[in-house]
Amino acid sequence: MQIDIAKPILDKNERTAEANRQNFAEHGVYVVDLLASPGSGKTSTILATIEGLRDRYRIAVIEGDIASSVDSQKIKEHGIPAVQVNTGGACHLESEMIRRAVDVLDLDELDLIIIENVGNLVCPTDFYLGEDCKVMILSVPEGDDKPLKYPGVFQVASAVILNKIDTMSVFDFNENVFRNEVTQLNPKAPVFPIAATKGQGVAAWTAWLAAQIEAARASAKE
Amino acid sequence: MQIDIAKPILDKNERTAEANRQNFAEHGVYVVDLLASPGSGKTSTILATIEGLRDRYRIAVIEGDIASSVDSQKIKEHGIPAVQVNTGGACHLESEMIRRAVDVLDLDELDLIIIENVGNLVCPTDFYLGEDCKVMILSVPEGDDKPLKYPGVFQVASAVILNKIDTMSVFDFNENVFRNEVTQLNPKAPVFPIAATKGQGVAAWTAWLAAQIEAARASAKE
Repeated sequence: MQIDIAKPILDKNERTAEANRQNFAEHGVYVVDLLASPGSGKTSTILATIEGLRDRYRIAVIEGDIASSVDSQKIKEHGIPAVQVNTGGACHLESEMIRRAVDVLDLDELDLIIIENVGNLVCPTDFYLGEDCKVMILSVPEGDDKPLKYPGVFQVASAVILNKIDTMSVFDFNENVFRNEVTQLNPKAPVFPIAATKGQGVAAWTAWLAAQIEAARASAKE
Repeated sequence: MQIDIAKPILDKNERTAEANRQNFAEHGVYVVDLLASPGSGKTSTILATIEGLRDRYRIAVIEGDIASSVDSQKIKEHGIPAVQVNTGGACHLESEMIRRAVDVLDLDELDLIIIENVGNLVCPTDFYLGEDCKVMILSVPEGDDKPLKYPGVFQVASAVILNKIDTMSVFDFNENVFRNEVTQLNPKAPVFPIAATKGQGVAAWTAWLAAQIEAARASAKE
């Protein structure tokens, strides 16, 4: 007899994720789960997103890391509430970790939570946390051939951010090749080329995110 | 009662890994398990390593990927035997996958096998495949703060390759910060700064690897 150990773990995760989703919906909080490799610029992208949307929305960040609290400190320095979740070795966040992190936050005082998942293009893909959407970042130095090598994450993403476009001349990155591979896997996902640390291209991404938040609010009122 | 599901999986992996190790030792084949994030330059580093050592050793490559065979094709174009292992979604190679891949190779005709693990700084860390050593790559664009955020992989590595050093001026990467963090986690591991696609710094790395191979041969003869 073979036991599929993945299934019960995913089922338990799914139940808590659904409870998280209801909790977020009752408080009118929109939640983004941000996926990417280590060093692709998740924290810089979050900081740029905060700058773009902080006048309009009340934002908090949940920082997922194997170890350390470097990232949540960076966020707090910008006056934004941040909760650090250390997975203690685990390669992805699970919904129970989010449930506990959310306990620390006052949802009535928030409009948007950005979850920075563990730096990993593979494992977080399968874990629903109760978020409204997953968004992924690929950075130019990682190469234009990554969509076909890591298809799962490109398929679950509602939007794809291409970061560090200011370094395109340094790397042999073909944006058309990249966009074609993304479209092949996920025809609907918009691609946002940005340079997070320079603010370049960020406005289009934050406008898209704001539109998602407004659409969720409108559909909640119906 | 709580069942630790990780343990039996790791135990089973360990047994097959030990059989792999014996198989490699009997044939006098040295095996490196190469770990890194997606896009940090694993395949380029392997190609540079092949160029540096192909006159001295007979080399084969086992390419681990979630999907696609892009990497093994690149290796074969250089006249080196390469076996593609697609994990079908799994975030790391396991020893059973290596056992099957090795079946395809003629170990009597080989001195060195380089295993390119799945692009992931987390999961492959815990899985012994029967290799002589694990080596990891971090690339400059990923940032100098990664050792403390992904400590496990820096701790299991016998050597750390710092790739894409030709882009250091583009990124805010402090090599001293990086080296200090590595030393803190793993005082013995040498750090090899290289630019794989340009051949820069590769000689020091291949000299180290050749020394490991020769040391293993000398100890096998005792």
